[in-house]
Amino acid sequence: MVILVRPQLAENIGMCARAMLNFGLTEMRLVAPRDGWPKKGARQASSGAASVLDGATLFETVQEAIADLNRVYATTARERGQTKPFFAADEAAAEMRTLTEGGSRVGVLFGPERMGLSNDDVGLADAVISFPVNPEFSSINLAQSVLLVGYEWWKLVSGGRAPIAPTRVSPPAERRHLLSFFDYLERELDATGFLTPAEKRPLMVRNLRNIWHRLAMTEQDVQTMRGVVAALVTGRRGGRSGRERQDPEPRDESSEGSPD
Amino acid sequence: MVILVRPQLAENIGMCARAMLNFGLTEMRLVAPRDGWPKKGARQASSGAASVLDGATLFETVQEAIADLNRVYATTARERGQTKPFFAADEAAAEMRTLTEGGSRVGVLFGPERMGLSNDDVGLADAVISFPVNPEFSSINLAQSVLLVGYEWWKLVSGGRAPIAPTRVSPPAERRHLLSFFDYLERELDATGFLTPAEKRPLMVRNLRNIWHRLAMTEQDVQTMRGVVAALVTGRRGGRSGRERQDPEPRDESSEGSPD
Repeated sequence: MVILVRPQLAENIGMCARAMLNFGLTEMRLVAPRDGWPKKGARQASSGAASVLDGATLFETVQEAIADLNRVYATTARERGQTKPFFAADEAAAEMRTLTEGGSRVGVLFGPERMGLSNDDVGLADAVISFPVNPEFSSINLAQSVLLVGYEWWKLVSGGRAPIAPTRVSPPAERRHLLSFFDYLERELDATGFLTPAEKRPLMVRNLRNIWHRLAMTEQDVQTMRGVVAALVTGRRGGRSGRERQDPEPRDESSEGSPD
Repeated sequence: MVILVRPQLAENIGMCARAMLNFGLTEMRLVAPRDGWPKKGARQASSGAASVLDGATLFETVQEAIADLNRVYATTARERGQTKPFFAADEAAAEMRTLTEGGSRVGVLFGPERMGLSNDDVGLADAVISFPVNPEFSSINLAQSVLLVGYEWWKLVSGGRAPIAPTRVSPPAERRHLLSFFDYLERELDATGFLTPAEKRPLMVRNLRNIWHRLAMTEQDVQTMRGVVAALVTGRRGGRSGRERQDPEPRDESSEGSPD
């Protein structure tokens, strides 16, 4: 439950709605918005999170806005001289999760853009949330405060997983293909005199192989690199007749690293 | 190092500067801002982070902007079909910290507002950063992406501490004062007949005392509550002559809970 206390600009209310929905929060309460409600400008600033705005409920006082809640947090960047439990956003998210899983309703108060919550507002809260922030420049935008609370909340409930999965990683190439590539490359390098003097060859080869090992190449990677080496050899020999010339299949991932 | 790639709106560049400075990041690079640079509107939107804007360096291409860096991350909300290490913002922050402590220079690419980074931009990065976000509504505002990376970075380097300390907590009251308060309260309650029937009195007293114990009252709290009880007793007796009437000292914290 995000409770915006006396917000000033409709645009900021819209941006708060967007930040909320980014992290799966949908319940917005507005306490005495300065310019009234609904207000033009909020919808556009929400960039598609109009559902949050449409569902927002309006209250005249903080007391009314928190009446049905079981625990209330106040966000503040300033010391308020009030003895209350004091949480970073991630700690608060953990407590909120425990409480909501137990059936409690929790809300977080965010103050107006310019001044933040009044001491009386903070006095209505059970605990304070503050953000680790540069002490030289600690004033955070309203929607960004909402974002940080939402982000820590969503990190917890989603297990921190991003919604997009990394590209399916192909398995590493069979070792015989990798070793065959090594042999091929070293054979061609021997032909150029690169791997000299002879007494240093073993070390040079080991170092070179270890660079390739770090790449953890897939079957397709090995084919591609083999093609690269072949192309270089062929080009050097002045023709396309090199016996190792290969045309790697187009990758099913992207064109990066592909010689096509 | 925050690198904004082809940012569209000066206001967003300003808001990025603010988000950066909130978390101690000061080095901004701009690649081909759509409307040129410097551009009116950025300064005001930065809400005082003009130093970041003034220090921003301008590049024509991403390649030039990353040339002197040792590791580059690309932020994206979309799957790109590119095989790269894939980090949540907190994981990336941990790696960045290790790298920068080793003397490396790292940068994070953020794409234009509407479309995000191009696949070619992402291709220039060593790794991808994505945010755990509501899969139904995953489009994050540019400055908010910058904020999340900065936040996770600052959480690490600052140890997650908020810049404001919780109000100095007074030590808990000496137990003799707490017990004396209990005795006083129960004596007064006995006088009213509240703690009846007699066989339930021990349980009622224990429950009542445990409520007070949960408060972890300071010396001042105990005095205040003793004053409250005295006032109630005195009022009920119809005068100010109650033997336990006390005027608690004004608290050095705030007026919450004070009867003054």
